[in-house]
Amino acid sequence: MKRRDLFRMIGAVAGSSAMYQAMTSLGLAADSQYAGPIKLQGAPKGTKVIVLGAGWAGLVSALELRDAGYTVELLEYNNRVGGRAWTIRGGDTITELGGETQKCGFDPGLYLNPGPWRIPYHHRGYLDYAKRFGVALEPFIMVNYNAYVHSDAYFGGKPQRFREVQADFHGHVAELLAKAARQDKLDQAVSKDDQETLLEALKEWGALDKNHAYVAGHDSAERRGYAVNKGGGLMPDPVGGPPIALADLLRSDVWRALTFGQTHQWQSTIFQPVGGMDSTPKAIGKSLADITTLNAKVTAIHQDDHGVTVSYVDARTGKDQRQAKADWCVCTLPLTVLSQLDVQVGAEMKAGMNALSYFTAVKTGLQFKRRFWEEDDHIYGGITFTDLPIRQIAYPNFGYNAPGKGVLLGTFAGAAPGFELAALSAADRVKLAVEQGARIHPQYTAEFETGVSVSWHRSPTTMGCAAAWTPELRAKHYRNLAELNGRVILAGDHLSNLVAWQEGAILSALDAITRLHHRIVAA
Amino acid sequence: MKRRDLFRMIGAVAGSSAMYQAMTSLGLAADSQYAGPIKLQGAPKGTKVIVLGAGWAGLVSALELRDAGYTVELLEYNNRVGGRAWTIRGGDTITELGGETQKCGFDPGLYLNPGPWRIPYHHRGYLDYAKRFGVALEPFIMVNYNAYVHSDAYFGGKPQRFREVQADFHGHVAELLAKAARQDKLDQAVSKDDQETLLEALKEWGALDKNHAYVAGHDSAERRGYAVNKGGGLMPDPVGGPPIALADLLRSDVWRALTFGQTHQWQSTIFQPVGGMDSTPKAIGKSLADITTLNAKVTAIHQDDHGVTVSYVDARTGKDQRQAKADWCVCTLPLTVLSQLDVQVGAEMKAGMNALSYFTAVKTGLQFKRRFWEEDDHIYGGITFTDLPIRQIAYPNFGYNAPGKGVLLGTFAGAAPGFELAALSAADRVKLAVEQGARIHPQYTAEFETGVSVSWHRSPTTMGCAAAWTPELRAKHYRNLAELNGRVILAGDHLSNLVAWQEGAILSALDAITRLHHRIVAA
Repeated sequence: MKRRDLFRMIGAVAGSSAMYQAMTSLGLAADSQYAGPIKLQGAPKGTKVIVLGAGWAGLVSALELRDAGYTVELLEYNNRVGGRAWTIRGGDTITELGGETQKCGFDPGLYLNPGPWRIPYHHRGYLDYAKRFGVALEPFIMVNYNAYVHSDAYFGGKPQRFREVQADFHGHVAELLAKAARQDKLDQAVSKDDQETLLEALKEWGALDKNHAYVAGHDSAERRGYAVNKGGGLMPDPVGGPPIALADLLRSDVWRALTFGQTHQWQSTIFQPVGGMDSTPKAIGKSLADITTLNAKVTAIHQDDHGVTVSYVDARTGKDQRQAKADWCVCTLPLTVLSQLDVQVGAEMKAGMNALSYFTAVKTGLQFKRRFWEEDDHIYGGITFTDLPIRQIAYPNFGYNAPGKGVLLGTFAGAAPGFELAALSAADRVKLAVEQGARIHPQYTAEFETGVSVSWHRSPTTMGCAAAWTPELRAKHYRNLAELNGRVILAGDHLSNLVAWQEGAILSALDAITRLHHRIVAA
Repeated sequence: MKRRDLFRMIGAVAGSSAMYQAMTSLGLAADSQYAGPIKLQGAPKGTKVIVLGAGWAGLVSALELRDAGYTVELLEYNNRVGGRAWTIRGGDTITELGGETQKCGFDPGLYLNPGPWRIPYHHRGYLDYAKRFGVALEPFIMVNYNAYVHSDAYFGGKPQRFREVQADFHGHVAELLAKAARQDKLDQAVSKDDQETLLEALKEWGALDKNHAYVAGHDSAERRGYAVNKGGGLMPDPVGGPPIALADLLRSDVWRALTFGQTHQWQSTIFQPVGGMDSTPKAIGKSLADITTLNAKVTAIHQDDHGVTVSYVDARTGKDQRQAKADWCVCTLPLTVLSQLDVQVGAEMKAGMNALSYFTAVKTGLQFKRRFWEEDDHIYGGITFTDLPIRQIAYPNFGYNAPGKGVLLGTFAGAAPGFELAALSAADRVKLAVEQGARIHPQYTAEFETGVSVSWHRSPTTMGCAAAWTPELRAKHYRNLAELNGRVILAGDHLSNLVAWQEGAILSALDAITRLHHRIVAA
């Protein structure tokens, strides 16, 4: 008996919680709750499931239920599958709520991922589907030491290099702690024996000099970079520049940029699919083409003891009302959309559907005549952080060091600036991204060609970026939303602890269809 | 007038030192002393330069002198160009000093870079040649948070994840410093106003809880990873594991692994050429094929007022003595080799040639039946660090998440373990790499197929890895080695501040041929 089968058995007998406790005690559950490819056995012949929404949760549900032997029908509002896992390329048109239509003018090979754009190494569900469908992955550069950290009001508005900010923050922290340790001010928190090693570690890690000071010179330059770098032959000797003062690091808030790449969900090695984020959903969608109806805007979900009836219209015209019937329904529509429909579910689930608001996000892609961030600024991939409303500039993580045009992400704003930007037209969001970005890269002005902007609150099929759970809302509504409600079960990243991640949608779908299948088989 | 031309003019008039001072004062010299493609104008017709060695320094010298109008002859000991910038693939044979010959048994597409294996973003000379010769680059993963840090004597020999070691070191440092700050023990080094921000920064950066303590829980798990990760639907709630105690981090030396990726030469974004490190030298070498003689082992370099005469034999037989004559000579042979030849240069240069010893390095490549480090251990690219003599295990930075075989770097040892390993036969070095690696990845035993090992001290053409400069040796010998000596000028990474880096060889060559050209034109 394979270990996986053992855990499945424990899960079947004692529930998934017991299964994961067993896995954890054996050190197997770390990193992911993805337990390998799902196997649903014994689907009753002729049982039909209707799946609503062909984003990740809907695609996974439809794929696995179909493969398990169910009759599946998949309805999708958009004229494409993938949901927020979407890639915009030249020729694509985008119509936002309010009616503004953009036509993307990017050159071939260039794109914007307006939704998710990276795959953590521990998102094993995603990685497994990418492997099954032969989608190639390439590294996403999360930490680029030569990218900028920009504070508009500090350093005369001049962007600082990430390597300088991190090295100087570490250096100052190490110097302060070393000083306290040498003056015996650590309050017995570190034993006398360990104190020597602590000082050695702080010296090496913080790039301190032999007096445990963080100063301009070779030690600090080996981390923050050189003012005059190392050369060959009789070129001048290398010179290290002066560190940024701790007070300036703290007051300017640039230290906030340091934690991103150290946070579990963004730690290296982190990936992007080669060619765009829609690669994997497209590949799965292709295998489901014969059971998929695109441009199907759901208007009502009714159920009774015998089955589920879903009403939908043609999303392009709002007309041509149709009905689809099934024994069961997996509904992956965002709660923003679902809560506005005529849905026959219990009061507690309804309350949950109505309780959640959604985070916002705005992304803007900008095409430039040349890759000046590489050619002039020596920034290859990665992210520049700024306190301007555009928040981030992210450089393409492919085609490095090659000539030609490039598209970078010129805005990635959530929260307050995200809502402010959402109030602008797409054209104005593009204009603003160019203006603000030019404060960091003056080349923007001369090199800009064309842009496209997506505000998720203005997307008719999503009306928001991701569910804004709080601990209180989660305690009150999560289980009511996740439990099977009559013949309807919900799934999606909103029903996971990985909100806004594709993996959340995948795990939610696998969990939902497993419970649904067990319910069906048990009946 | 372009800025570049202005600096060239300053350089021509006032010397390169003045040029770089001017560039630095304008903030332009940071990051590299590479000043863009070299342009040597006015080469006297019919002047011949012989270039010895077709590693990076020799290739760059031959290429640029040839393009400037010189008649160039290039002699190379090996049967290939590139020198230490070398890639070993299936079918290649390697014969070491002592006579042992290995035949590499790797599958197609798999390889070992036994010499340099990464290109920092600030090695602009390299990047420019890669661009000129159309060589594609891909990211080298320097920091992999899910790779291991292994101390054989601590944690029961169980490897720790890099993310746990770094998060816990940061957390303990932040907690200690926050405590000292809150108890007003920082000795006025931080103003009262800044102290509040310092505490906020330490809390966020160190993942401290609301009491500024670093403990098991959500905050620390968001950095070190979860014992039970986040799931979807009704999967169990995430659980954070307990941090490693500071005393264990310090005593086990695992903290030493934290600085690699933060050191300027290894900071992201850092690259490798697609397909192997020999790509760029091979491409340059192809353009020089008509002026290159391979298998030419230099035995003597003589010079007089009229020219230089280089004697060489067929490296395969040791016979067939020939002579090549030229007006000038650029000699890029390693000093280990050069110091053993009959070379007519001044006493001071001779003293320098004899004074330097070379660092050692051993690399061993291992092919496995499957990529278990990805499939089982979820390590995609990057490096595991251990205090075993193998020192590092580096995973391939391409073909992620794909099925099939893989070659990893099973040993990268310098210093003491490097010399110990160099004393073993290649077959024994492979055996030892498998045995020691199995303590970290038990799958080694069942999955190993074939290996190949290179000890640079046993390479007949190099007899060492790189020049072991000390500040004292540099003060005494560097300039004497770098100055034109009669009609002979030396170049190579050994004559740079970037020893063991391809960029050092490139910058050294550009500097040497510029000075040589100016001397020739001035005559």
